[in-house]
Amino acid sequence: MSAQKAAGPVDSREADPADYETDVLVIGYGCAGAAAALEARALGAEVILLERAGGGGGSSAHSGGEIYLGGGTPIQQACGFTDTAGDMEAYLLAALGPNADAEKIRLYCEGSLEHYEWLSSRGVPFKPSLWDSPSWVPPTDDGLMWLGENAMPFAALAKPAPRGHRVTSEGYGGKVLMKVLAEAVDEADIPVHTDTYAGQFILDGGTVAGVVATRFGKTVTYRARRGVILATGGFADNAEMVALHAPRLTGLGVTSDGGDDGHGIRMAQALGAGTARMSSAQVGITLIPGLVVRGMLVNAVGQRFINEDQYPGLLGQAALFKQDLAVWVILDEKAYEEVPEQERWGVVPHFAAETVEELEQEVGMPEGSLTGSVREYNRHAAAGEDPYFFKNKRWLRPLEPPFAAIDVRRGMTAPESGSAGGGGASVFTLGGLQTGPDGEVLDVSGVPVPGLYAAGRATAGIYGQGYISGTSLGEGTFFGRRAGAAAAAVPGR
Amino acid sequence: MSAQKAAGPVDSREADPADYETDVLVIGYGCAGAAAALEARALGAEVILLERAGGGGGSSAHSGGEIYLGGGTPIQQACGFTDTAGDMEAYLLAALGPNADAEKIRLYCEGSLEHYEWLSSRGVPFKPSLWDSPSWVPPTDDGLMWLGENAMPFAALAKPAPRGHRVTSEGYGGKVLMKVLAEAVDEADIPVHTDTYAGQFILDGGTVAGVVATRFGKTVTYRARRGVILATGGFADNAEMVALHAPRLTGLGVTSDGGDDGHGIRMAQALGAGTARMSSAQVGITLIPGLVVRGMLVNAVGQRFINEDQYPGLLGQAALFKQDLAVWVILDEKAYEEVPEQERWGVVPHFAAETVEELEQEVGMPEGSLTGSVREYNRHAAAGEDPYFFKNKRWLRPLEPPFAAIDVRRGMTAPESGSAGGGGASVFTLGGLQTGPDGEVLDVSGVPVPGLYAAGRATAGIYGQGYISGTSLGEGTFFGRRAGAAAAAVPGR
Repeated sequence: MSAQKAAGPVDSREADPADYETDVLVIGYGCAGAAAALEARALGAEVILLERAGGGGGSSAHSGGEIYLGGGTPIQQACGFTDTAGDMEAYLLAALGPNADAEKIRLYCEGSLEHYEWLSSRGVPFKPSLWDSPSWVPPTDDGLMWLGENAMPFAALAKPAPRGHRVTSEGYGGKVLMKVLAEAVDEADIPVHTDTYAGQFILDGGTVAGVVATRFGKTVTYRARRGVILATGGFADNAEMVALHAPRLTGLGVTSDGGDDGHGIRMAQALGAGTARMSSAQVGITLIPGLVVRGMLVNAVGQRFINEDQYPGLLGQAALFKQDLAVWVILDEKAYEEVPEQERWGVVPHFAAETVEELEQEVGMPEGSLTGSVREYNRHAAAGEDPYFFKNKRWLRPLEPPFAAIDVRRGMTAPESGSAGGGGASVFTLGGLQTGPDGEVLDVSGVPVPGLYAAGRATAGIYGQGYISGTSLGEGTFFGRRAGAAAAAVPGR
Repeated sequence: MSAQKAAGPVDSREADPADYETDVLVIGYGCAGAAAALEARALGAEVILLERAGGGGGSSAHSGGEIYLGGGTPIQQACGFTDTAGDMEAYLLAALGPNADAEKIRLYCEGSLEHYEWLSSRGVPFKPSLWDSPSWVPPTDDGLMWLGENAMPFAALAKPAPRGHRVTSEGYGGKVLMKVLAEAVDEADIPVHTDTYAGQFILDGGTVAGVVATRFGKTVTYRARRGVILATGGFADNAEMVALHAPRLTGLGVTSDGGDDGHGIRMAQALGAGTARMSSAQVGITLIPGLVVRGMLVNAVGQRFINEDQYPGLLGQAALFKQDLAVWVILDEKAYEEVPEQERWGVVPHFAAETVEELEQEVGMPEGSLTGSVREYNRHAAAGEDPYFFKNKRWLRPLEPPFAAIDVRRGMTAPESGSAGGGGASVFTLGGLQTGPDGEVLDVSGVPVPGLYAAGRATAGIYGQGYISGTSLGEGTFFGRRAGAAAAAVPGR
């Protein structure tokens, strides 16, 4: 029998009288919920924002604080880059694919400049300077970074421009983004009910009309006259849902605030809502981008399998889904020393040797395997070429003794991730509810569930199978705003 | 907007009076539906069997006719093999994993001898002779075959025994299995309503109490006093569901009777039923097992990635999910000539060359890539070893000029598959409804949906991510029987 909390709805005729009534009820106070509440309120709707934790922030506040924006933002321009919505769209379609949501990506890219202004005018800070090397979170406060746009195969599909807009912050910037959004929520006089867990929908006929929640063990009933917006996050913290829908994530570290239990998704499924691409995930592999780009990423038999200059989230997906995380970073002393200690996050090589043959033996790879790979890599690198995976020649040079190997599965602890990267990666889910472009939750026949909206990681969002940093905060706030606007526009009941 | 047929239920107070009433209503006349109907009837329940096509058979009748059975069946014994339920269980847990359904696999293996008897006593024919080489469907009528049990890593996890029980037949045996089951259905006087498409459930309170169907454009209403059993198959024929849940299958050939539209799955989801592992799939890669086992299977940069003697379905999954189907079979003239023409299914090499260097260039692989792989393979094969992937030494010998390459994506047409293997593979889905061990459909909170059962490919069955031939017919009939028994035991309403 399942250990899941019951997720089925309550009929409005059997629900308690409402403790609170509002136009739009937003569940979950991460970036998507905050954006939805702000937009609904700005359009004149009465809004209440529920949050299960003791305060706002959610998993958004634990994030690096990158926001994927482009099309020629002031920050891009100040750094000397031109960009178009079309190039941004072409990159995201490819990098988030296959089977990314083309319509939502088009809207997101066409609306990106306006969305930059929306964030910026609320006080989200971005510094107009570029960090120019692969990284999870740069050690500086530079406000712009590449997120794989200049790596093959993508560099050939769309004109590259850096689109990672980093919220100015010491270290991780998610907490700064959420602080700014929280100030805006306060200024808009939106009531926030913390420590409040939405457990069941109230159904009025076939329409979602509120929720039954619990606060410190007591039942609290909310009615929404116009709509309920789920911004409850993904299901990475729910081991049972992970085993059912994204089994390859089992046992890995989780990037979240601990509350991504998928309950909001299940509440909607209990009404017949559809889901999409539930097995997709961001894979924060525990490697240092600055190190791997200067060396080789190889599998258990010493084979390279990807160009090491791709956005590290795509390295992580390839490592997990295609190599079962049995991967090693191979580098030489020079590569290791080129990366300043503060950027190594405490990672030290697990094996070191004077020759590749010795390293191969120490790591336990078949005789001749890694040796052959390094020989091939060096031979082509000497000519400035990578005919296997087309790594940019900026990063190509023959590796020289002594050599070292880092076992990715041994993990590391990122400075502020709040997660140990268990088993070599820290993950979160990308699959979730099927939604239309205005956040309307769709049932399994593709018809909107009346009264119900969703945004952020509770939805399948813009993603196919790929993931690029900055898109979660980016599309969470962008489609959160659209959901807020759509719910506010519903005639009140 | 979606093109999906509406899948939501009808309230019993609004449904037409029943045209037909029965105890147990079975929807779908493939192997799972037939087994469910037979078992329910044998326990005294009145049964009606609905089928959308003009006659029974479903996708089961299009299959090769292998049934995965073990634990020491008379056929295994006659061929000189001992086997235990425990070894069978250990193999399936590993080969169908990770995250296979351990409880169902245990039941399936413990019940395998009894299930063999059930099939055999109804007249399903098996010949006591072994086909001893990797194959999709052997060219002989041998009744027993290996399905990867003797290949690494599985051979080290469980004592190998061949468990592929082939229904005696000229060519594909699925049609013979379904002919035998249909004779049993006729003998049991179970009414079969063909050309009847179940479109919506009838809900009585929260209980599934029947279906509204259409037959030649007319609405026909069925009431079930004890239970409704979905045996409607998977969703491989529904492009929209495939894009949402198993996007990597998009554009490939489909192994089915054309009716695996997932509508039964969606009807249950509309009631809040849960699904599991919707991205899993069988991948019938278009290669000839007898050829690849004698050569090498390599990716786009000439790397081997799996031992070629594994069950070919696992080769297919690795090729699709880990190498995007950009794979080639590399072999030499001797290997090609060792495989009789009738077993080659018309496959001829797309490239041939006197040296590996020339072949590498013709195929378009990086200079030195395939050459290095063949050199490594030959060097180790000469010593009777495969330290990379542990292919059995029976199949290891250095490859000698002239060489040839087969491009798997160019596909082929299997003699009786009814599918062209578009894009290099023909697939069907393994994900589906969450069910308990007696076929009870579970909602997203893990609670049975009253009155609703399911079996076969409409369910997630026993599978994690792997697939082994014979398990679909095997677990379809096995858990079909259990669902039939469970529904028959419900007190009539």
